[in-house]
Amino acid sequence: MSEQLQRLAKLPLRENLKGISPYGAPQIDVPILLNVNENTHGVPAEVVESITEAVAKAAASLNRYPDREFTELRAALADYLGHGLAPENIWAANGSNEVLQQILQAFGGPGRTALGFPPTYSMYPLLASGTDTEYVKGERDADFELSAESAARQVRELAPNIVFLCSPNNPTGTRLGLDVVEAVYDAGEASRTIVIVDEAYHEFAHDGTPSALSLLPGRERLIVSRTMSKAFALAGARLGYLAAAPEVADALRLVRLPYHLSAVTQATALAALANRELLMADVEDIKVQRDRIVDELRSMGLTPAASDSNYVFFGGLEDPAAIWKGLLEEGILIRDVGIPGHLRVTAGTETETTAFLVRLRELLGQA
Amino acid sequence: MSEQLQRLAKLPLRENLKGISPYGAPQIDVPILLNVNENTHGVPAEVVESITEAVAKAAASLNRYPDREFTELRAALADYLGHGLAPENIWAANGSNEVLQQILQAFGGPGRTALGFPPTYSMYPLLASGTDTEYVKGERDADFELSAESAARQVRELAPNIVFLCSPNNPTGTRLGLDVVEAVYDAGEASRTIVIVDEAYHEFAHDGTPSALSLLPGRERLIVSRTMSKAFALAGARLGYLAAAPEVADALRLVRLPYHLSAVTQATALAALANRELLMADVEDIKVQRDRIVDELRSMGLTPAASDSNYVFFGGLEDPAAIWKGLLEEGILIRDVGIPGHLRVTAGTETETTAFLVRLRELLGQA
Repeated sequence: MSEQLQRLAKLPLRENLKGISPYGAPQIDVPILLNVNENTHGVPAEVVESITEAVAKAAASLNRYPDREFTELRAALADYLGHGLAPENIWAANGSNEVLQQILQAFGGPGRTALGFPPTYSMYPLLASGTDTEYVKGERDADFELSAESAARQVRELAPNIVFLCSPNNPTGTRLGLDVVEAVYDAGEASRTIVIVDEAYHEFAHDGTPSALSLLPGRERLIVSRTMSKAFALAGARLGYLAAAPEVADALRLVRLPYHLSAVTQATALAALANRELLMADVEDIKVQRDRIVDELRSMGLTPAASDSNYVFFGGLEDPAAIWKGLLEEGILIRDVGIPGHLRVTAGTETETTAFLVRLRELLGQA
Repeated sequence: MSEQLQRLAKLPLRENLKGISPYGAPQIDVPILLNVNENTHGVPAEVVESITEAVAKAAASLNRYPDREFTELRAALADYLGHGLAPENIWAANGSNEVLQQILQAFGGPGRTALGFPPTYSMYPLLASGTDTEYVKGERDADFELSAESAARQVRELAPNIVFLCSPNNPTGTRLGLDVVEAVYDAGEASRTIVIVDEAYHEFAHDGTPSALSLLPGRERLIVSRTMSKAFALAGARLGYLAAAPEVADALRLVRLPYHLSAVTQATALAALANRELLMADVEDIKVQRDRIVDELRSMGLTPAASDSNYVFFGGLEDPAAIWKGLLEEGILIRDVGIPGHLRVTAGTETETTAFLVRLRELLGQA
């Protein structure tokens, strides 16, 4: 038992926390960070300036509690999403993890279940456990795909209270068709299942990819979650949000902590939203690098998944641990997500992406 | 049933949330806000400047996730608190409500209990409910006091998993002696009770008032929570924190959401901490206004509680609702905390405090 666990054993920790270790990707300081799907293109100078101005303005009244309803931010997010959404369709919190936690607090909890389809976002089971919701693992088809038929059958059989659909999926980067979302929603009718479509990476999808936002009208159990961490280059500012029927926001008002969203966070997010054209230009460049990675990996004889996100999941590796280590030796950090034969890499700047591809070819003996 | 509740009934809300309304003090926009114990003295211009500079610096790398361990902030908070505390004794979150929620997630939960002594901070039962912890109401002595003997007896009898001691207490503003904390801690030995001393308003205590921080050495079940919302005039920035044994922070690492504290929040809090002398000068002036309110209310024949906070709880009112309304008509908002014959008022600036006192004398027919 580690020293930390020995210390912890002195405290009356809850049973389901005993012996577990904290979540967290390693934070290693190397020149090229392609491991946690951050926006590698940085925050443009104009956006830094807008954020600074907005926060300077907000700072003068920080002695007051923030607008509990973050009215202006909800309006700006609704405007950004389009699809006829109004401010009352929007909810936000400190990162999409907190949004998902609030959904579990409202609709999950003791005696209730949440269904996910691994491999998928690794926080789902942890968020379920933190809210005493039982996490149930569904099954995917070959190549980590998920068909409408299979997903709907599992929802009918398991009748979960909540379903997580991640599109594009993390870590595979692949998108789900809207037919899957529709089929899962319909299959959850009898069990009144809350269907969450986690679209954290939607902005990186290929042109013309439809969003589950288009399915919201008439579906009060459907929730589409988004984040400003990725396309908006704001991972450090923690702003996750969702769109859904107004009654979903009402439900989350019952479980959110009062004033959960600071005035500084609201100001920062608003400033970034005001600069969205600039930020979306960087997204376009990231998509170019992402497609380049997929093409080049294929030419190396590897099997990259078709990615609609800002990262590429690839297989065909005999010794992923050796590749991961070989990249790190050159100051390039990517992610070993624990799936045999596979690794995941975030699309970098053009220079970073080149460095990754060159080193990978070397390690594969193709240089 | 309201329209909102009718809409909500369409969703599969958890049983314990059905029919309840969201928490929240009314946010009414009037000139003199003395209702939620904010720091009425505003954010000094130098502090606004420091915050702006710090956020401008942080904004350039907001595309990256924040330091999950908020290392610099923990060091600055430890330095501020003194008492020989080190960074590993410190934990922080988005407001002390989130700190308390994390403590409940780690040490409370289904089948566990938390004891509070009403009237006290109204969030304790809501935080307990949100984590499926059973909230047990303890009893106070006459005049809302709580003696060491009575508190210890109740802890022995009820054997709660967690106890909330609020000092100075909200809404009464009165402090608990450290003898109460010591007696409660000892009484909780058999049940391994976690003892939380909520010192949100400690900086406003009269000179020489000891903090429960002095009791931390050798007491690994003791937690002292604090906030930057009040003395540091940062209610809008949401920064709560605690000091405890290092294993308490380790326990909270198991339940906190990854990257829960944004880089912008960390920068803002650090900037305010760097200006603490300036901010503490305002605290001294607030204490003068607080003492002035107590003296003047006494001279009006009312019964203000001895306050060590930035607000005054006062009784002796025949019709508190009429007084509350009469003040509001003059643009002065104070708080009706629902205790017969009593109201609560935040200490304002000298001008705000004068306006409150003048109008109150009028309403009492003493002008």
